[in-house]
Amino acid sequence: MSSSSVNKTAHPFDKARLEALLSHRFFYAPAFEIYNGVAGLYDYGPAGSALQANIIAEWRKHFIIEDSMLELDTTIMTPAPVFETSGHVARFADWMVKDTKTGDVLRADHLVKNVLEVRLAGDKEARGEAAKPAEDDKKKKKKNVKKVAVRLADDLVKEYEVILARLDNYGGPELGELCRKHDIRNPDTDNEVSEPQEFNLMFTSSIGPTGKVPGYLRPETAQGHFLNFSRLLDFNNGRVPFASAQIGRSFRNEISPRAGLLRVREFTMAEIEHFVDPLNKNHSKFGEVRDTVLTLLDRDVQAAGGTQVVQLSVGEAVDKGVIANETLGYFMARIYTFLLKVGINPERLRFRQHMSNEMAHYATDCWDAEIQNSTGWTECVGCADRAAYDLTVHSKKTGHPLVVKEAIEPPIVTEKDVPVFNKKLLGGTFKRDGQTLQHHLESLAEPELLKVKEELAKGKASVTVDGKTFEVTPELLTIERRTFKQSVREYTPNVIEPSFGLGRILYTLLEHSFWCREQDVDRGVLSLPPLVAPTKVLIVPISAKKEFEPLTNEISAKLRRAGVFSRVDDSSVSIGKRYARNDELGTPYGITVDFASVKNRTVTLRERDTTDQRIGSVEKVIETVTELVEGGIDWAEACQRLPAYDGVQAVD
Amino acid sequence: MSSSSVNKTAHPFDKARLEALLSHRFFYAPAFEIYNGVAGLYDYGPAGSALQANIIAEWRKHFIIEDSMLELDTTIMTPAPVFETSGHVARFADWMVKDTKTGDVLRADHLVKNVLEVRLAGDKEARGEAAKPAEDDKKKKKKNVKKVAVRLADDLVKEYEVILARLDNYGGPELGELCRKHDIRNPDTDNEVSEPQEFNLMFTSSIGPTGKVPGYLRPETAQGHFLNFSRLLDFNNGRVPFASAQIGRSFRNEISPRAGLLRVREFTMAEIEHFVDPLNKNHSKFGEVRDTVLTLLDRDVQAAGGTQVVQLSVGEAVDKGVIANETLGYFMARIYTFLLKVGINPERLRFRQHMSNEMAHYATDCWDAEIQNSTGWTECVGCADRAAYDLTVHSKKTGHPLVVKEAIEPPIVTEKDVPVFNKKLLGGTFKRDGQTLQHHLESLAEPELLKVKEELAKGKASVTVDGKTFEVTPELLTIERRTFKQSVREYTPNVIEPSFGLGRILYTLLEHSFWCREQDVDRGVLSLPPLVAPTKVLIVPISAKKEFEPLTNEISAKLRRAGVFSRVDDSSVSIGKRYARNDELGTPYGITVDFASVKNRTVTLRERDTTDQRIGSVEKVIETVTELVEGGIDWAEACQRLPAYDGVQAVD
Repeated sequence: MSSSSVNKTAHPFDKARLEALLSHRFFYAPAFEIYNGVAGLYDYGPAGSALQANIIAEWRKHFIIEDSMLELDTTIMTPAPVFETSGHVARFADWMVKDTKTGDVLRADHLVKNVLEVRLAGDKEARGEAAKPAEDDKKKKKKNVKKVAVRLADDLVKEYEVILARLDNYGGPELGELCRKHDIRNPDTDNEVSEPQEFNLMFTSSIGPTGKVPGYLRPETAQGHFLNFSRLLDFNNGRVPFASAQIGRSFRNEISPRAGLLRVREFTMAEIEHFVDPLNKNHSKFGEVRDTVLTLLDRDVQAAGGTQVVQLSVGEAVDKGVIANETLGYFMARIYTFLLKVGINPERLRFRQHMSNEMAHYATDCWDAEIQNSTGWTECVGCADRAAYDLTVHSKKTGHPLVVKEAIEPPIVTEKDVPVFNKKLLGGTFKRDGQTLQHHLESLAEPELLKVKEELAKGKASVTVDGKTFEVTPELLTIERRTFKQSVREYTPNVIEPSFGLGRILYTLLEHSFWCREQDVDRGVLSLPPLVAPTKVLIVPISAKKEFEPLTNEISAKLRRAGVFSRVDDSSVSIGKRYARNDELGTPYGITVDFASVKNRTVTLRERDTTDQRIGSVEKVIETVTELVEGGIDWAEACQRLPAYDGVQAVD
Repeated sequence: MSSSSVNKTAHPFDKARLEALLSHRFFYAPAFEIYNGVAGLYDYGPAGSALQANIIAEWRKHFIIEDSMLELDTTIMTPAPVFETSGHVARFADWMVKDTKTGDVLRADHLVKNVLEVRLAGDKEARGEAAKPAEDDKKKKKKNVKKVAVRLADDLVKEYEVILARLDNYGGPELGELCRKHDIRNPDTDNEVSEPQEFNLMFTSSIGPTGKVPGYLRPETAQGHFLNFSRLLDFNNGRVPFASAQIGRSFRNEISPRAGLLRVREFTMAEIEHFVDPLNKNHSKFGEVRDTVLTLLDRDVQAAGGTQVVQLSVGEAVDKGVIANETLGYFMARIYTFLLKVGINPERLRFRQHMSNEMAHYATDCWDAEIQNSTGWTECVGCADRAAYDLTVHSKKTGHPLVVKEAIEPPIVTEKDVPVFNKKLLGGTFKRDGQTLQHHLESLAEPELLKVKEELAKGKASVTVDGKTFEVTPELLTIERRTFKQSVREYTPNVIEPSFGLGRILYTLLEHSFWCREQDVDRGVLSLPPLVAPTKVLIVPISAKKEFEPLTNEISAKLRRAGVFSRVDDSSVSIGKRYARNDELGTPYGITVDFASVKNRTVTLRERDTTDQRIGSVEKVIETVTELVEGGIDWAEACQRLPAYDGVQAVD
């Protein structure tokens, strides 16, 4: 059976099945489960940890190593003044509403979204347009919203659609207004909700034993980069552009997280801060990505209530000004190739530009890489131009200069007319007014200064400052041509920030990888690319008998030496069950060891998606599977090298 | 010059120089430095992050991969009930004292230690025994303790020494008593201090918008393993022993951290929880470590006020009962080989057993891997037997069984005499007392039951329960021989926990690696092993001229393909300065590209410690340096392959 003959869409995507698989195979689970859990906190088990570690390893290679970025590992617990300066204390908040009777807290924008989406679904059903009743039913159940097949007026449908398209652009007062206008209530209780109030999303704590040093858990790793800017610049021998990078935990005290790994209170993120000359945001490697085609949803389309995307090459998008500059474009293209490498479906990936009110307080432009999944389109990577915002505010607050000093070679030489005073005579003649007069003359533009010069050439000049006129003589003042040399340029760099939510990428990847075998809907498979699969090769002795151990250990040791991560499964269930378990774990290859293996040193190699089996000598199979895992060959090529296995072990 | 001729101890260890180097080369720096920092919080820069990442990568290989451990990534923010159950809320605390006038807070045991050590140093000086005045001076200055050369009475010296040896064994009341008895005051102010009070070391926070869900930041990753025990056991197909492992951030709100990376409020740790049958703590791989010789300081020696160590093989130590069991011994040996691999000096490494009062509330035995450094001996890895403590308390609190069910094959068959009642007759005859009688008979030991049987055989038996006598007949009761089969054994596993403070290992490694060149004390070197060095190879074109770029890029790309991490330094300073900078960064090898390289495709290879230079073709040098970095060959062997460089580039 060839790979292309596998029908991965024989059964529609079934979220409940996927969730059962992820829980049962311990990709992740609610944290503190035996204590009944806490919303928005999850633990990764062995499969999830390995998947995450592999995504991180590839991230490090794709971004840090490829562009020689400077890695950092900075502190989570942060004293309050840092986030006061950065603006997070004042503005890093979401709008929440309270159920007016129960006091339950809901996030205002999510409430509006959920209620209107359900009403629109009810409308569709009433019009006989309901597409996927199964999906809708689940949505209804999950959100506790009673969907009723009620037909809405055509203009109301349009109004709801526009609200949903512009949702991220609304503030608290508008959300409150929407709740009143459209009678949006808490779907759990049908009670009215309060006016939206702001809730700051940072977790608070206190540092040290005195109780007098308030701290916050960082909601992003970025400030750790900015505060260390001078040290990083120094490490990079004073040169810009350069990028720092950090992978680490951040915390956001979400109001009411209910979306699994897509909205959590504690998460691992990977952030790059690329520091760049504000006068030159070109990128030296832009040529390498110019032809990468991206799916773009720009802010103008959204502001008009639309969601139509365009396909543009990055080069074209920058040329047309859709993407603001080359550096932003470079990173968007690099983000795109990274996401494809780890297994995201490119047809379910788009870049959406932020609308003006939606943008974080520090950003001047921002594009989100959004990945489509069962809940809709979810931001998984943000790519923002933070301009000079952060470095400027921290520098101003602390007095520590966070600037680049760049030698100008050759120095810029300029000539300028300047007033030159006889200071003694100036003071003697005008007393205190002398200084006022001096400052005035020094601030004059060249044409006016030349007028004074002309008058002086005639013996005397009149200068009026704040309505008071001074008579000055050539003894007291001369206007002279002087040469100035500027050899250093000082500037605050701008920052382009790609910021990755690793848990969101991991979850959407799991959705994109999941399918069920055509012949049996209960046999789920995760078609994870070998690059990120938790285990690359499963070694399966046909039984736990001692006689298989030497060969099993040998294969295991040889794969380890080749850098291929394998696991042995010698549990007592059937081979079929063990393979089914590993299909669920996304293990791409399996090596079976049986009696013939011990006798002839041949083993079979199984491919996960096709369940196709080939046979060959231990050495040849290890060599082939190593190349498969490293991406040097594909399964079709492996089949050229290894004959099909017909169920009877043969001598190679 | 050969490696052996390098004199690394020509200059005495100079902590101030090392600290300047670490700061200047941005291994790490105080976090929030431009905001004047917060004690006990540090950021790792590019060099420190890479060093840490390499230590972690080796840890993963040495422990997780080698023993097929199950990796986890669990949550830091933890709801309060978890740590109430684990005992941390009640007992995870240090004793603090307050300066009675200023209110400054000090950790009680550290205060006692600092003051007594300084008095002993003063005594030594008065006796003319002061060994290292330079070191002592720095200590004095750092701790603000005025050392005075005062001779103490001989028995007071002995008393102080015993206090210091037993320091970790004292609780708050004893520490208060010591302060009063020996007039120990705040050295910063000379004021008296308050009675010691407990201060809980967990950072507190609040989860969600209601303010009603208190949370703690975890002070260790261990609880995340225990709470997921059932899922882990299931993942491991229900079998024990197995180990879970986790690398992650933890937090401890230290009272007054002043020891750099050795005592911090936020840190990365790596923890293993090895779950084992309490009746069998042998380890299947113990044979592999049996002959590893460790330096041990056991609890009896310390309790007697001593610090004498013994050298014992792990096998011998377990046989003699010095180390409690094979699993504990296995991990101590594996910890030892890991620390040596990353570059810790084995002569400055010992395992110290905890004294009974010192042990954490959950531990039954504990050995610390202590590494000697400029502050003394510091715990860097703890290896504790937590027994069944954690699983038992969580299971009891939540009602969720955290146990192993083990099939007994063949089942244990036992025969037993049991009472069999005619229930109807029993109730009819004795009414409510029937049940009392039944319970009594069921709880009887076999000999007594047999007596009843004998009486019944004679027609009737008298049974007395709580002073009341019942007459029973054979119609009402028979004693029968029955067969019982036990096929499942249920038990709570014990846990052996190796727990690594990665920052402490990193810092002591930096101390062990640091030295200054004999000819120039200003030229510091970090002799980090290639395995953990932040950069493996520095590529140095003799100038930033464009003509070197193609070859520099080629070498860089080839090294990347070979998996060797390199950096190019084409900054404008001299080659000597660039190498000196990289000696400070611990970069073991350097490749120089000059005009002859471009012409002849030969480059030189420099070794960091010897500064020895060899020459060869680009291909041969890349091949050689790759093997050097992978540990396949050493520098002596590399010198066999590549001729010495005499300062004139030659055609290979």
